[in-house]
Amino acid sequence: MSAAIQPFKGLTDRFNGVTVDSQKENCELPNFLATLEESMKVWETSKKRGIWFKVDIQQSDWVPILAKKGFNFHHANTDYVMMFRWLPKEENNVPSYAHTMVGVGAVVVNDKSELLVVRERYGFTNWWKLPGGYVEPAENIVDAAIREVYEETHISTEFHSMLTMTQAHERMFGCSDLYFIVSLIPTSTDIEKCDREISECQWMKIDEYLDHDSVTELNKFFIKTYLNYKSNCITINCKHGIHSLLKKAYTVHYATKIDEK
Amino acid sequence: MSAAIQPFKGLTDRFNGVTVDSQKENCELPNFLATLEESMKVWETSKKRGIWFKVDIQQSDWVPILAKKGFNFHHANTDYVMMFRWLPKEENNVPSYAHTMVGVGAVVVNDKSELLVVRERYGFTNWWKLPGGYVEPAENIVDAAIREVYEETHISTEFHSMLTMTQAHERMFGCSDLYFIVSLIPTSTDIEKCDREISECQWMKIDEYLDHDSVTELNKFFIKTYLNYKSNCITINCKHGIHSLLKKAYTVHYATKIDEK
Repeated sequence: MSAAIQPFKGLTDRFNGVTVDSQKENCELPNFLATLEESMKVWETSKKRGIWFKVDIQQSDWVPILAKKGFNFHHANTDYVMMFRWLPKEENNVPSYAHTMVGVGAVVVNDKSELLVVRERYGFTNWWKLPGGYVEPAENIVDAAIREVYEETHISTEFHSMLTMTQAHERMFGCSDLYFIVSLIPTSTDIEKCDREISECQWMKIDEYLDHDSVTELNKFFIKTYLNYKSNCITINCKHGIHSLLKKAYTVHYATKIDEK
Repeated sequence: MSAAIQPFKGLTDRFNGVTVDSQKENCELPNFLATLEESMKVWETSKKRGIWFKVDIQQSDWVPILAKKGFNFHHANTDYVMMFRWLPKEENNVPSYAHTMVGVGAVVVNDKSELLVVRERYGFTNWWKLPGGYVEPAENIVDAAIREVYEETHISTEFHSMLTMTQAHERMFGCSDLYFIVSLIPTSTDIEKCDREISECQWMKIDEYLDHDSVTELNKFFIKTYLNYKSNCITINCKHGIHSLLKKAYTVHYATKIDEK
């Protein structure tokens, strides 16, 4: 290498941090260390704050070199790992990456006061549960509930009300867990269960479910909450909007009395 | 190396997956590729499913070797990256890692019908907002709201009711976002603002806030919801329990009429 080393350009953000994307600014492995060292000098001189390297799996040879230069991991997705180093002396105020898994369960009651219940194929126990699963990336909670019910039981549904939200910690992957129960109205009747996930599926009388030995207390609480909302004319509604500053879609959930809807 | 290569042992889980922790089974770099190849043979023969490598930052030299052997990233935290490869021919049904950031905002109203409001130091705009911030790992939402109010304004508070939950997508780090508004009752009156985060902080008459030009429509909606819950005697409560099967703590939030509490 006789030519002078060109530092990474990166993209400067509004917090005066810099992000280098390995796919946008590739650098051959033999030149990487010298390029990194030259870039760090430039960033220190210009008082940059957080330095981010989005390293694609194709350039994963960069990872050990960045680690030796004081970078830590911040987060990863299938194809890339984001590495991070904080330059200022003051405390690092960059937020942690997401650490909460979001799941849904559905209370689906037909006009005979029967509840749609399932037994999981790979569950810890053989208990009767509510259909449900994890919310997918960029999916709305209500949409996830409708999708999971359809996937597991082939029953079509419409939104009725949010019911409860349960928070717990140290669950899957060591993450916290938010589990939303959504009340849905069935628009079909014939069950066709998903054999891959479910061992049994049926319509069960609400009273039978509330008396059943193989139902957790928490699941019974969800059903009692459903009945309580009905008798008190409470729903937790769902309203879509566009944020006035960010110009981006949002969905807000809030309790209301049914007669005010 | 004359001795026979010993494959990684790893830890087998209930889904017939294996996890190797680089800190529990270290392997010198010159031996790593041969050990990995020997292990893969064993795992393929024994019909293992998901293969996980938890690679500590100290062993980050393993990362490019695993990548070349068909491993992808799954998630990362400061000190480690989790790499993953699915062996069976059938579809991979391992859930994605967390992809939702969780934030809180607080409606703190004193007995003069004044609302605690702040202006952020590094905000996009100079608008009057509710005190709040991100929920920390393993922190309950209500605790996060109380902590953020105290950190930003030095006002002590107690839980009153959950109010709303807003979901949006493609926000910080490309994650989805759940933003909970919690109603808190102040137990102190004298504001002492946090200069690092906040440029202004005050008690503002609710009517003034609802008429203010520098308040978003969504924030006004949160306050109207607060007033609506009051006039309809609705609260969204918070109940702590221990899961009967998992024997682990949870917190469940559910709407109720005040007279039934």
